[in-house]
Amino acid sequence: MSPAATVPQHAPFTQYPIWVQEKLSPKAISIIQQVHSWVENEFIPAEPVMRAQLAKDPWQTPPLMRSLRERGKKAGLFNLFLPSHFPESPGLTNLEYACCAELLGRNYWAAQTLNCNAPDTGNIELMAKYCNAAQKAKWLQPVMAGEMLSSYSMTEPDVASSDPRTLQCRIHREGNEYVINGRKLFGAALHNPEIRVIILMGLSDPHNPDPWKRHSMLLVPTDTPGVKMKRHLSIMGYTHPPEGHGEVIYENVRVPAENLILGEGRAFEIAQGRLGPGRIHHCMRIVGQCERAYEMALIRCTDARKKPRGKLIGEFDSNIERLADMRIEIDALRLLVFNTAHTMDTLGNKAGKYGIAQCKIKVPLAAARIIDECMQFYGGQGLTQHTPLPEMWTYARYVRVADGPDSAHRHQVGRDEIRSAPAVQARHARYRARAKELAKLFSLVDGIEEKVEDAWEYVPKL
Amino acid sequence: MSPAATVPQHAPFTQYPIWVQEKLSPKAISIIQQVHSWVENEFIPAEPVMRAQLAKDPWQTPPLMRSLRERGKKAGLFNLFLPSHFPESPGLTNLEYACCAELLGRNYWAAQTLNCNAPDTGNIELMAKYCNAAQKAKWLQPVMAGEMLSSYSMTEPDVASSDPRTLQCRIHREGNEYVINGRKLFGAALHNPEIRVIILMGLSDPHNPDPWKRHSMLLVPTDTPGVKMKRHLSIMGYTHPPEGHGEVIYENVRVPAENLILGEGRAFEIAQGRLGPGRIHHCMRIVGQCERAYEMALIRCTDARKKPRGKLIGEFDSNIERLADMRIEIDALRLLVFNTAHTMDTLGNKAGKYGIAQCKIKVPLAAARIIDECMQFYGGQGLTQHTPLPEMWTYARYVRVADGPDSAHRHQVGRDEIRSAPAVQARHARYRARAKELAKLFSLVDGIEEKVEDAWEYVPKL
Amino acid sequence: MSPAATVPQHAPFTQYPIWVQEKLSPKAISIIQQVHSWVENEFIPAEPVMRAQLAKDPWQTPPLMRSLRERGKKAGLFNLFLPSHFPESPGLTNLEYACCAELLGRNYWAAQTLNCNAPDTGNIELMAKYCNAAQKAKWLQPVMAGEMLSSYSMTEPDVASSDPRTLQCRIHREGNEYVINGRKLFGAALHNPEIRVIILMGLSDPHNPDPWKRHSMLLVPTDTPGVKMKRHLSIMGYTHPPEGHGEVIYENVRVPAENLILGEGRAFEIAQGRLGPGRIHHCMRIVGQCERAYEMALIRCTDARKKPRGKLIGEFDSNIERLADMRIEIDALRLLVFNTAHTMDTLGNKAGKYGIAQCKIKVPLAAARIIDECMQFYGGQGLTQHTPLPEMWTYARYVRVADGPDSAHRHQVGRDEIRSAPAVQARHARYRARAKELAKLFSLVDGIEEKVEDAWEYVPKL
Amino acid sequence: MSPAATVPQHAPFTQYPIWVQEKLSPKAISIIQQVHSWVENEFIPAEPVMRAQLAKDPWQTPPLMRSLRERGKKAGLFNLFLPSHFPESPGLTNLEYACCAELLGRNYWAAQTLNCNAPDTGNIELMAKYCNAAQKAKWLQPVMAGEMLSSYSMTEPDVASSDPRTLQCRIHREGNEYVINGRKLFGAALHNPEIRVIILMGLSDPHNPDPWKRHSMLLVPTDTPGVKMKRHLSIMGYTHPPEGHGEVIYENVRVPAENLILGEGRAFEIAQGRLGPGRIHHCMRIVGQCERAYEMALIRCTDARKKPRGKLIGEFDSNIERLADMRIEIDALRLLVFNTAHTMDTLGNKAGKYGIAQCKIKVPLAAARIIDECMQFYGGQGLTQHTPLPEMWTYARYVRVADGPDSAHRHQVGRDEIRSAPAVQARHARYRARAKELAKLFSLVDGIEEKVEDAWEYVPKL
Repeated sequence: MSPAATVPQHAPFTQYPIWVQEKLSPKAISIIQQVHSWVENEFIPAEPVMRAQLAKDPWQTPPLMRSLRERGKKAGLFNLFLPSHFPESPGLTNLEYACCAELLGRNYWAAQTLNCNAPDTGNIELMAKYCNAAQKAKWLQPVMAGEMLSSYSMTEPDVASSDPRTLQCRIHREGNEYVINGRKLFGAALHNPEIRVIILMGLSDPHNPDPWKRHSMLLVPTDTPGVKMKRHLSIMGYTHPPEGHGEVIYENVRVPAENLILGEGRAFEIAQGRLGPGRIHHCMRIVGQCERAYEMALIRCTDARKKPRGKLIGEFDSNIERLADMRIEIDALRLLVFNTAHTMDTLGNKAGKYGIAQCKIKVPLAAARIIDECMQFYGGQGLTQHTPLPEMWTYARYVRVADGPDSAHRHQVGRDEIRSAPAVQARHARYRARAKELAKLFSLVDGIEEKVEDAWEYVPKL
Repeated sequence: MSPAATVPQHAPFTQYPIWVQEKLSPKAISIIQQVHSWVENEFIPAEPVMRAQLAKDPWQTPPLMRSLRERGKKAGLFNLFLPSHFPESPGLTNLEYACCAELLGRNYWAAQTLNCNAPDTGNIELMAKYCNAAQKAKWLQPVMAGEMLSSYSMTEPDVASSDPRTLQCRIHREGNEYVINGRKLFGAALHNPEIRVIILMGLSDPHNPDPWKRHSMLLVPTDTPGVKMKRHLSIMGYTHPPEGHGEVIYENVRVPAENLILGEGRAFEIAQGRLGPGRIHHCMRIVGQCERAYEMALIRCTDARKKPRGKLIGEFDSNIERLADMRIEIDALRLLVFNTAHTMDTLGNKAGKYGIAQCKIKVPLAAARIIDECMQFYGGQGLTQHTPLPEMWTYARYVRVADGPDSAHRHQVGRDEIRSAPAVQARHARYRARAKELAKLFSLVDGIEEKVEDAWEYVPKL
Repeated sequence: MSPAATVPQHAPFTQYPIWVQEKLSPKAISIIQQVHSWVENEFIPAEPVMRAQLAKDPWQTPPLMRSLRERGKKAGLFNLFLPSHFPESPGLTNLEYACCAELLGRNYWAAQTLNCNAPDTGNIELMAKYCNAAQKAKWLQPVMAGEMLSSYSMTEPDVASSDPRTLQCRIHREGNEYVINGRKLFGAALHNPEIRVIILMGLSDPHNPDPWKRHSMLLVPTDTPGVKMKRHLSIMGYTHPPEGHGEVIYENVRVPAENLILGEGRAFEIAQGRLGPGRIHHCMRIVGQCERAYEMALIRCTDARKKPRGKLIGEFDSNIERLADMRIEIDALRLLVFNTAHTMDTLGNKAGKYGIAQCKIKVPLAAARIIDECMQFYGGQGLTQHTPLPEMWTYARYVRVADGPDSAHRHQVGRDEIRSAPAVQARHARYRARAKELAKLFSLVDGIEEKVEDAWEYVPKL
Repeated sequence: MSPAATVPQHAPFTQYPIWVQEKLSPKAISIIQQVHSWVENEFIPAEPVMRAQLAKDPWQTPPLMRSLRERGKKAGLFNLFLPSHFPESPGLTNLEYACCAELLGRNYWAAQTLNCNAPDTGNIELMAKYCNAAQKAKWLQPVMAGEMLSSYSMTEPDVASSDPRTLQCRIHREGNEYVINGRKLFGAALHNPEIRVIILMGLSDPHNPDPWKRHSMLLVPTDTPGVKMKRHLSIMGYTHPPEGHGEVIYENVRVPAENLILGEGRAFEIAQGRLGPGRIHHCMRIVGQCERAYEMALIRCTDARKKPRGKLIGEFDSNIERLADMRIEIDALRLLVFNTAHTMDTLGNKAGKYGIAQCKIKVPLAAARIIDECMQFYGGQGLTQHTPLPEMWTYARYVRVADGPDSAHRHQVGRDEIRSAPAVQARHARYRARAKELAKLFSLVDGIEEKVEDAWEYVPKL
């Protein structure tokens, strides 16, 4: 079946690999078209308004955002990220959502207009998966309905958070309450009063012999006494309103025991479920950022106002080669993201773990390089607010460290690989064994036995 | 449908992306298994014998190769590369063949045991597509049957062959014959007497106003008087017997006019059809080489004989990260190759051109880097004949220049991209236009009109 | 003579190459020690105060800066950058100043405490070299005395400023005045009232057949009517107070004709003299930034609070390798900078042009990579204001585009290289000629004549 | 003093940094000129003859080599590498020799014509430094006189030789003899009968508690019974006659006890002294290879026979940028080498260790990249024997693993760096302490104490 039969042969569909086009349901096609139109016509053109409103009052949801969120919700475009196997899902697969997420990624805030922004996405998936009915009614439902925002509190400044077993924000049980003490980085800044709940990970059982069972997760209402914003965190100088990033102190913060998620000591079980999709959502969006940055490079290349040494910038073949490299790389990144999303759809998040790591390692690194190159096309101007490129670069750079630096993910992949080494050794040892059999058949070749030994000397003998 | 239902859940199948597993026909699955077994059990273990036979007499097809070719042919594994839309095809799609080619790529000579080696593959596809019945009977049939070998003669040392319009090997019509004079590089070396025919590209109509119509292709029997091997060409010191690479002089070589392919002046039409699949075949095989090289790195990492500073090589986390990077990169390369093969299957070679270029640019470059890294794992030994890595690296490096250096392909992709720039400019101009409409709605924001102008200043006004 | 005889064997001196240590005069040694102590004891520890004062009132010179400038001036540490061949110079060579500049580079503002900051440095050198006595008395003297600040106005948003022949800000002569109309980017922002003069480059003679003689330079007092700040420019989000970067509109700005520098049409002559040293100053300072960033990575590596998987960050050998790579690269960059400074000292700025380009291309690119790596050592925290690394990265990134993007410099170097090709061809042709003579002596070697031809086939014959 | 006063202002002198020109003695200038002329007029033009003679009989010193060595010796150009502090030295400093070595590096064999080739260079320096008078008379003198060649036998295939403490080739004392058993890689192949002595490192005292004192070095005449060449080793397919690389088996090889160098257990002391200069010599020569490769790229860029799309290869600005990058990089590499050589001259080999590691890590890696790029300029032809580029690349690649892979050197440098971390921590802790003092002076700034704490939070408190 030719994909042309079902998929519109225009942007954004034509950018998708054929095998992806083949898999899009009619419903997904319709939603992707709506999201495309939304971003193109309602959101990107509204960026200056969004910026102006945020400049006036950064830590309130801007009126424009409110209005767009209302419209997005009415249009049925909320929470598209939640995969179809959840009862609460609007019905897209991870692969189908990846198409939407790329479009939303063209702007830092666009995802929020459709309630598809971090950390709410991860929190919603977490709550849908691990919360009980009462917790869902109280927190999941209003967050999905866009009636409140949520935060996620895991990273700490005083330990190596890339190894979350070292997290030390303390959670004590006292009677019917948990008491929290600690300091956390990232998660949303908390000045925006719509942020009403924090999912917090802390150390509840420091002496458990299994270090993977020492931590728990709690739902913490932001207005609980003792929750204090120390400061907004800037990321490469950007504060990312209206939610931003916060440094938060927890001082004797008390929450009811019913706010515990899943059970004591089960934080890692939950965290793993949360972080996987979150990482791939970031990567999907970054591909969209790359596309927008790349379009800007193309525009610069054909801007008749810019003619160094009498030629358009795009008439220099060095720039033509740079464009080609970027085009090729962006498409390769998209392929990785789509392939991972499809693996998650077919085999589940756990089997998708390798793909998620692959994307997490490659996509933000390559994207930052691509956007940096696009800035370079704009010369000095490319680094100023004359273009959105510096913000895009910063987001891509941020994702390299968000949810763990890439070296932590490399270590994980590499250690899994090492585990496959014995099977590989056995396979190559079989080559040697079989070669010895063959060598007998070819005994006319001088010294063939020794040649066989030499050829597989690199395989240790057991 | 879960892919597990149809695809064996073991190597090599589990390495394929799920969407690829889903697309493999039962016939393809069976053939892939046969090829896997062939390479694992018959070919790789026979490498020392092949080397020994070639060392003795490099420019004859070695007895082992003959015997393997006979068996391969009987097993129905010949010419798997020829896609299913050709009547002569054994019935695999490009995607399905890609799975086979990767396995064959584990060794430089393995493809030849199944008649899937360059330049015969390209020549067969060319003849199947463009030759007339008489030509097919005389040349295509015996080459497909493994009864003769063929060569391809295009590159010239005296011009910039990356722009093939500059090729100047002369083809004159004289009566019922064409007379050829020129010098060519690459294509097979001609000492092996089984090589019986050369497909040669030359300049037949130098004054045609259209430079794309000045060249023609001829079938040249290797025993035609005037065809002279000047020397074997080495590639980074390797001569690649039993076919190798040759520098060939054509001095007043006369062939009958009926040896013209397709028509005078149609060489570029033919060449384009030939080179696309050829390029992707190389890339498929290179992925297989990377896998084998990577396996060797894994083995070294867990070789108990090697314990610098008391630790296994794979206990150094720098090496763990290197393994992860290689694993991730190889899988990303495979994804590119598979995606391109599927595009060719679905939309044809022409629509697949971009994907082919993408693979041609990225795969050999990345593969050479990966294999180089694997050599480094072996220290000094890695560069010697103690491992097959130097030969593998050389093949990957060679593909970077075979069929055009990567910069030529980048230029092509980049120039196509530049053509899309006007549509991109229009799209971004629409952002500005729409933003002006929105600005009116938000006139309460101070200076919003100017902010809109500033935000899209980068878009030239027409 | 051992350098130990004259140079203190402690930091920062021990970081200098021996040949540099050998060249430092006793005076320079004393000044370097003073600057070192200044930066270590007075400036870096005062950063929080500087930040706090700037946060309150960004576009005024902060009281701390004033006080430090006064003390710096009294200590005789003003204007160290102005090389010893100027009568106004405090007496250091470029090489000696490079040692100071590196120390000053440890912080973005430190140079300004000693009147060694761009754009004043470039402007001072320009005025010292090209202004007449009256101009010097009016502008050079007070800028050198720290009584006023200056700006430089060259880049334009509407043309390709990397080819400054395309600059189009218009300068008309009307009677005894020049009238200026245009828009400029960069140069300082103008809100700080201490900035009293702009050196502006504009198009005064658009029809001059020699495009290098169409532009002139003018001294423009900032309070001249028609000079308007359109906005502060941010660089990757940073505004760099108290001088910052501005987008400035010139509308019918009138200055007396006596404000012309050197003569009409001589802007390029002046610009070249200005930009060379400016570029190398940036590079010197960036090396200092790298050192500071690197020190932070070292600290993180040995921070006992951070023990992922039970080991210090510096106990992972991947990080040990990263440290080594950074150490080695920083030292290599310093060597480039020192070598260029010494070439400028010995042979002049013009002969130093190549070295300046070499530094401009390599240093900021490598430095941004190094600082980025250091951020990565700090994980998510590394991108926040918890460390000064994001600001350092931004400065290094900025220098990649300041004074021309690196590709423009590469083009210049490459074109100069191409000019040397005929001599290289001749040299290799001589090899061939000589080889033919030798071949006669060795005529016993079979076919030696042909081998000689083959060996130098790559050399075109004239 | 202007260097022009003493140094000829033509090639090769003008390529040297000014500070190097300043340091060349009149004697060195004269020798460099002779070596330049030697390589230009006698050696490079004789390459085809050398190749032809080696093709005929690879494992004999070719007649041309003999004749050139005789002439070189008569001209007083033998053993230039041996630094002036040795009584046997011809009188150049390391820095001065670096200029010669770069010229010799233009060809793989040229160094041998002047007795400056590995492994003889390292062996000569070792023997000059550590052998007793009798050993010198027997071995050092004839090797320096070019009357015999030597080999060096250290690397083993069965252990991780990058950690030489694991070397296990056994040396037993039996009476007045040492008995050797083991297998070694590299060092020269031994077919050439002029190779008369091997310096061998082996394990003599396996139970010594200090693993750095378990090994010894012996002088082993090649004709000792039990010394057996197992095979020639190829390096990326090249065998490097007439000395090549060998895999050598030692079976009950007996040498007199007087052949022990320096003393039992002192092999590491000796090895360190040997390897440092050897590494830097390789790097010096590689710079010369880069220059020759680069010249070939320049020639290709201006070869009128090559005009893809109607332009010279050097008229494509992508190639112009590539040339610039290569030029800049080669000069940066030379600077590293010269700086290290000068450090060795001034402070000795031990203090030069860091510089040697810096060169060893950066130079071969960058050089292989540069030569690879030059091959790419030549397209497919660049990888064949039509150019000397593949051999040059192979040599550069080889040096990346010779004397230890670069990661081993990085580990060494990185571990030394880590040792400097406490001092760095203390320095940054002083910033904090001083900042607290300053904060008191500026108590008017709100919350300055906390800002100080925050600014140095990254510094651990003791």
